[in-house]
Amino acid sequence: MNDTQMNGAESLVHSLIANGIEVCFTNPGTSEMHFVAALDHIAGMRSVLALQEGVATGAADGYYRMARKPASTLLHLGPGLANGLSNLHNAKKAGSGIVNIVGEHAPSHIALDAPLTSDIAGIARPVSHWVHNSPSAATVGEDAAKAVQAAMVAPGQIATLILPSDTAWTEGGIVHDALEPPAPTDFDQSVLEKAAEALDGPSSLLLLGGEALSEANLEMAGRIAARTGCKILSEWSNARLERGAGRVEIGRVPYPIDIALKVLEPFDRIVLLGARAPIGFFAYPGKPAVLTREGAEILTLADAGADLGAALHALTTATGASDTAPAHVVAPGLPDRPSGPLDLDRLAQVIARAIPEDAIVVDESVTTGRAFFPVTKGAPKHTWLNNCGGSIGYSLPAAIGAAIACPDRKVMTLTGDGSAMYTIQALWTMARENLDVTVLIFANRRYKILQGELTNVGVGNPGPRAIDMLSLDRPDLQFVSMARSMGVEACEASTCEELETAMEDGLASSGPYLIQVNI
Amino acid sequence: MNDTQMNGAESLVHSLIANGIEVCFTNPGTSEMHFVAALDHIAGMRSVLALQEGVATGAADGYYRMARKPASTLLHLGPGLANGLSNLHNAKKAGSGIVNIVGEHAPSHIALDAPLTSDIAGIARPVSHWVHNSPSAATVGEDAAKAVQAAMVAPGQIATLILPSDTAWTEGGIVHDALEPPAPTDFDQSVLEKAAEALDGPSSLLLLGGEALSEANLEMAGRIAARTGCKILSEWSNARLERGAGRVEIGRVPYPIDIALKVLEPFDRIVLLGARAPIGFFAYPGKPAVLTREGAEILTLADAGADLGAALHALTTATGASDTAPAHVVAPGLPDRPSGPLDLDRLAQVIARAIPEDAIVVDESVTTGRAFFPVTKGAPKHTWLNNCGGSIGYSLPAAIGAAIACPDRKVMTLTGDGSAMYTIQALWTMARENLDVTVLIFANRRYKILQGELTNVGVGNPGPRAIDMLSLDRPDLQFVSMARSMGVEACEASTCEELETAMEDGLASSGPYLIQVNI
Repeated sequence: MNDTQMNGAESLVHSLIANGIEVCFTNPGTSEMHFVAALDHIAGMRSVLALQEGVATGAADGYYRMARKPASTLLHLGPGLANGLSNLHNAKKAGSGIVNIVGEHAPSHIALDAPLTSDIAGIARPVSHWVHNSPSAATVGEDAAKAVQAAMVAPGQIATLILPSDTAWTEGGIVHDALEPPAPTDFDQSVLEKAAEALDGPSSLLLLGGEALSEANLEMAGRIAARTGCKILSEWSNARLERGAGRVEIGRVPYPIDIALKVLEPFDRIVLLGARAPIGFFAYPGKPAVLTREGAEILTLADAGADLGAALHALTTATGASDTAPAHVVAPGLPDRPSGPLDLDRLAQVIARAIPEDAIVVDESVTTGRAFFPVTKGAPKHTWLNNCGGSIGYSLPAAIGAAIACPDRKVMTLTGDGSAMYTIQALWTMARENLDVTVLIFANRRYKILQGELTNVGVGNPGPRAIDMLSLDRPDLQFVSMARSMGVEACEASTCEELETAMEDGLASSGPYLIQVNI
Repeated sequence: MNDTQMNGAESLVHSLIANGIEVCFTNPGTSEMHFVAALDHIAGMRSVLALQEGVATGAADGYYRMARKPASTLLHLGPGLANGLSNLHNAKKAGSGIVNIVGEHAPSHIALDAPLTSDIAGIARPVSHWVHNSPSAATVGEDAAKAVQAAMVAPGQIATLILPSDTAWTEGGIVHDALEPPAPTDFDQSVLEKAAEALDGPSSLLLLGGEALSEANLEMAGRIAARTGCKILSEWSNARLERGAGRVEIGRVPYPIDIALKVLEPFDRIVLLGARAPIGFFAYPGKPAVLTREGAEILTLADAGADLGAALHALTTATGASDTAPAHVVAPGLPDRPSGPLDLDRLAQVIARAIPEDAIVVDESVTTGRAFFPVTKGAPKHTWLNNCGGSIGYSLPAAIGAAIACPDRKVMTLTGDGSAMYTIQALWTMARENLDVTVLIFANRRYKILQGELTNVGVGNPGPRAIDMLSLDRPDLQFVSMARSMGVEACEASTCEELETAMEDGLASSGPYLIQVNI
């Protein structure tokens, strides 16, 4: 292709495609118009428009988790990138790979300090592993290939490529072929024997994260647990966890600090495999931040960038578990059918009974969802995605990306009302792309987690102004009409029966469907 | 107050109040719970909750422009700040002063790299003039006072104070009294005589910005124009412009580059007073970025940080204009009452006839509003606010701040549909605070400016995929039901008569009211 005359923007699009990028989540502006033109006439890249950039970056996060390859975003200068920053933070913490294309003024214009001039690299750096400013049309293609390569460093990285507008419109673009995808690092062989010895009964823990939570890898962990008697757990927030009937069940280190301390108290020896040592989400006055017992031995066999399948395989062999049947394999089984008004328990039961085979559950239910895990474990095989960076507003965008990555699977989004409102514009993109997403919004009409956190940080008796600052009931948000105003069909449910019917309708539909769950 | 035992959070709130801060636009999280508790029991600070941080920072921008003093924001760690970043960019470019309070983990927790850990100072720096991390409860009060002082450096600055959570909950807070407000700098005395001489007829231009656009300062500019025959203009985007019947009229340097070049072509000599030399918003292939004619002499008498009233007074004296009656004083006068279906001209006429005395018009009408200025000039005295940073999504939040700063004035927001969607969550805060804001959303169902920019950058014949990427009509956004879903009364208008009635209703109401204008 390199002998055809093309501009930098065209070389960008061709090079991204040559390097395996198939989707662009976009909210472009003037400085990106040549990219829009290139996307128009070059086949092979699906462009998905978002009304706010946080939707675009969150969608790219969800896409990576399910497609296991990066999408691109197209963002307008520093402010467009800034709007997408918090979901890039979440993606970074989840180990998702994303290629951000950010337009920039031509260098002659930057010197003039125009209204939209800003320090784009400075804005990008806190959330990016790789930041590069391309100097000319001739380098754009190669830089695009390098950006994709950077995004694919295991488990996945944020790569931000800044393209001055003159590099887009100038002729002389050169398409760059696919670069070699980076290999994961080796696990720590020197720790292997020690780790195998450390796992020897119920006071030892194998803590898993990242790719270790795939179906095949969990099966190996189940064998090790059966053979050694060790416990297995995952982190509280997982980028992607395979679960349901027939798979090895794995619990999570709980979010509430007192419960987490209690769960981790028995463990003298902890082997980390793609997970990090357990710490609290926040610091609390007078409470420890490190959640493991004092003096516990912590061995890092493999971090998230390592080949976790190879590490688990070696550990299975080293513990002599290769022929052991895995422990914790979940038998199919659903809770009894609940009825009457919804409470947190009955809500979990209705959801458990509704999860379809192969569903992708995007979970941002914060307080409401803390009891969902045990009740849903016997549902048909499904995939569960958590918010890994704690910046709320990830789930509606991530559902877009998951649905685009897996058009044959049902996507369910479980979100609090407070969380949903950060990136509510995502509903419009779901409607526009007719994505198969069923959204449950748990309308408890407050930042309930924060009302709890007031107590956790030692504010015993909050006054009415504090409670009001954490309440969403003045006025009540009407999610049904809000969804319809953006083209998404919707209904409301206050009882088990209503929610059951609503979820049937939502999951039967091939497009997006929103349920306001009144709890 | 310093002898009372209090924690750092309490010393923060007391010190902000002592330094003149009366409002906090907030979306707090766990690490800010002690500030929430302090705001609860300390009188004197109005807390305004936003559902997304871009609403909080945009509101602080609008507040500063009208109150001429800073508000504070309370944001949750790096991601909360990140969500507010693009409207901080706009505020920075507008010369608005804002005091951001950003919670941070306790230092012991930062070392653990928790999910919400990020480089907060790194995120803050591109949009902040002043960034500081307070080391202890004892320093929080003084740092708060310094942050306010930094925010008040003329014309206004972004100050970001990062407060680790242990500084909030630890006892030993010390309230800091008001610091001396910083004085504006002197204008450039050495340029005064030269500037006065340069203004000598229609090929000379006095270009005004910032505080030079107040009623009294414009009157002086009108005298100078009458005396010398020079032209007067403002920048395209003004933080705040006083206009209407009885005031000196001032045109703006047009946004479209070809028209701007034509308007500025006659000027050999340009005196800058609070304005910057005219440049294009964007670089375009084959077009100049500097909009003034080659060889034009440009004299900077005063930049935006100078005492512009003093500069204008001196220039009035130096040009011998002190006793000259000002030119360009606008006679009261409204366009004839239009009727029938709305087009851009009739839309401007209806709006002109509806602007109430003392209204604040927050303008983000992008393409639709380019013809509003000439038609509305004879309306009763009013204030006009533009987006100065070009990051769209400023107007709904800024209207919140303007309405809180000026509860006795009517606020009108003029916004495109694309712009409105970036920060649509602002409607809920308008409802919650029952703010007197009438919102007109111009529903042209596309990013019309970008469809035009495709042509400007040389993409002559965009294909269907490019047009689709810039269209908002799949599905149509229903702003009436969207507004109601967030508690804001709303209606739709497609004819002059409908819009007239709708604006009467909206302006008669004491709370928020939204009109979807179909054009």
